Amino acid sequence: MDEQSYLSGYADGEGCFCVTFNKSRRHRFGWEIRPSFSVSQNSDRAEILRLFQEKFQCGTIRPDRSDKTLKYEIRSITQLATKVVPHFTRYPLLSRKAEEFGMFAAIVHIMQNGEHLKREGFGKIVQLADQLNRSGKKKYQRSQIKV
Amino acid sequence: MDEQSYLSGYADGEGCFCVTFNKSRRHRFGWEIRPSFSVSQNSDRAEILRLFQEKFQCGTIRPDRSDKTLKYEIRSITQLATKVVPHFTRYPLLSRKAEEFGMFAAIVHIMQNGEHLKREGFGKIVQLADQLNRSGKKKYQRSQIKV
Repeated sequence: MDEQSYLSGYADGEGCFCVTFNKSRRHRFGWEIRPSFSVSQNSDRAEILRLFQEKFQCGTIRPDRSDKTLKYEIRSITQLATKVVPHFTRYPLLSRKAEEFGMFAAIVHIMQNGEHLKREGFGKIVQLADQLNRSGKKKYQRSQIKV
Repeated sequence: MDEQSYLSGYADGEGCFCVTFNKSRRHRFGWEIRPSFSVSQNSDRAEILRLFQEKFQCGTIRPDRSDKTLKYEIRSITQLATKVVPHFTRYPLLSRKAEEFGMFAAIVHIMQNGEHLKREGFGKIVQLADQLNRSGKKKYQRSQIKV
């Protein structure tokens, strides 16, 4: 039994590699970019969320908006870059979600290097995030986010 | 990367160990007992379902009632007893769903030995299934199934 592979399998079904944009005067180009890796689970069986936390040695577990589920989430760029991205590179997703992870990893990489503070890097992230979040609901359409 | 552990992790989130009862004149005690292991997934990323099928070398993939998902399912008692139960014994679930698997495995074991054709075995299955399907919807309540 390999717990690292187990967690990748679990994340393939229940995990989310997301990037959201929030309007912000404090951030370059007027937008805060917030990537996150999260996994949700019914609170009556949160063991797997604690296992993620134990393996990644970071991230928080808290009730989701719907109070019936718990959400394990990592938002720190450094933790995403040094723990989440290396994990899913070594124990890769076996479904098409692997493509989403690839785009997510590219975004994290750009941010870790501070390139999102330059026009080119920011534009690249907007482009990648548009493909990444294709299936989910978007708060802002790509056309609304101008550099 | 260990694909067997990966599949267990995936099944922990998306898999189902179910036992249903159907009224039947052809079956002993008037009930058909039908255990199944299944995993559902959106049809646009069915790779994992094919991986289950490849590893278990059995089971079918077909559209679920809702036409947006595909379901991989194993119903054969022999396949459940010789492939599914050994797999999840060797690569165990790490959440509380492991308890459900334990009850499921016991039911499969009783049926594989033909003990469900005896009153005692049948009664034991009804009891186990009642605990197993506690969270899901039941077609028949335990009190309706009399031996």
